[in-house]
Amino acid sequence: MKLSTRNQLRGTVTGVTTGEAMAVVKVQLDGGETITSSITREAAEDLGLEPGSAVVVLIKSTEVGLGVED
Amino acid sequence: MKLSTRNQLRGTVTGVTTGEAMAVVKVQLDGGETITSSITREAAEDLGLEPGSAVVVLIKSTEVGLGVED
Amino acid sequence: MKLSTRNQLRGTVTGVTTGEAMAVVKVQLDGGETITSSITREAAEDLGLEPGSAVVVLIKSTEVGLGVED
Amino acid sequence: MKLSTRNQLRGTVTGVTTGEAMAVVKVQLDGGETITSSITREAAEDLGLEPGSAVVVLIKSTEVGLGVED
Amino acid sequence: MKLSTRNQLRGTVTGVTTGEAMAVVKVQLDGGETITSSITREAAEDLGLEPGSAVVVLIKSTEVGLGVED
Amino acid sequence: MKLSTRNQLRGTVTGVTTGEAMAVVKVQLDGGETITSSITREAAEDLGLEPGSAVVVLIKSTEVGLGVED
Repeated sequence: MKLSTRNQLRGTVTGVTTGEAMAVVKVQLDGGETITSSITREAAEDLGLEPGSAVVVLIKSTEVGLGVED
Repeated sequence: MKLSTRNQLRGTVTGVTTGEAMAVVKVQLDGGETITSSITREAAEDLGLEPGSAVVVLIKSTEVGLGVED
Repeated sequence: MKLSTRNQLRGTVTGVTTGEAMAVVKVQLDGGETITSSITREAAEDLGLEPGSAVVVLIKSTEVGLGVED
Repeated sequence: MKLSTRNQLRGTVTGVTTGEAMAVVKVQLDGGETITSSITREAAEDLGLEPGSAVVVLIKSTEVGLGVED
Repeated sequence: MKLSTRNQLRGTVTGVTTGEAMAVVKVQLDGGETITSSITREAAEDLGLEPGSAVVVLIKSTEVGLGVED
Repeated sequence: MKLSTRNQLRGTVTGVTTGEAMAVVKVQLDGGETITSSITREAAEDLGLEPGSAVVVLIKSTEVGLGVED
């Protein structure tokens, strides 16, 4: 499926913290940076996410802010 | 300021498209990937964004989805 | 690609309004309701969206609020 | 109250999963599709959400992405 | 309608900038602070927003980040 | 760091509810209103948030909806 989502970054899961309702997933991008994603627990289980899982990080452009250091 | 925003990625602006209300900013991350950000035109002007500007990309974890390729 | 995005709804584009930076796309869901999506102009062009295009509406669960009528 | 929120879809709650901080609510739209919403636990309790509750699903247009199948 | 949206703040519109697709609305909260909202142009026109309009600012809790000054 | 985030409001934490993955933080704005923020548990601990903590509430303009009372 081709997505309108402008930001699609490849990486590998390095950790998954699961709560009752939500899960927080840590991903190391191929570029080296670390990304944190909060998704539903159901989604994390549905995708079978665990350390070592290859993933694509998906971020809609309207959710991306910018900062400029002083 | 220390931010709750978990995702803070360094990069350089490569392009700015400005509309009446909004602006779309292209950023090349230090890791090599390209990021697209949609912010208000006012914010883009306020930060003086132009090709070559050093920026920090800011993304709240709840805005980050994941995909697993078939 | 299998997505963590919990909300995936099929529909057909009924209209596209394009600005310099952003585009607003109207979609009629197979279930009959109308959905409005704001994406970058680039994304709308990239996906070749026009009235009649078959699409999947994608909404992360954290972006979905609820209301209860009085 | 008239909302700027473009997407307002009627449905019925079919399930509520509650964590310490957040809750995940499943809704069947009148059109037949299933929607997942992540809200605070407080909000779910405040609205008295339980299977059978009639709700309006509320989604801001900037949070709606689109996909086109290959 | 009772909303799951935790953040509901009263204020008055002080300015509206309209583009082809989107609009940026400035609101002065009753508490004195200024809020900026990006909504579709359609929504701004639908609500008849203009300087002096009384509004309720609506922000889902998952969209609210926090910072702590050094 | 200068942020593109248009909405930056000062306040004081009045409560923190922590789950396994997420945390919900209540903040009283200097203007008097109460704000609710859902962030990762990690972020709440990282910022050392507790009742009395001085914070800046950060909200991207695209996440701000508006309502007009009937």
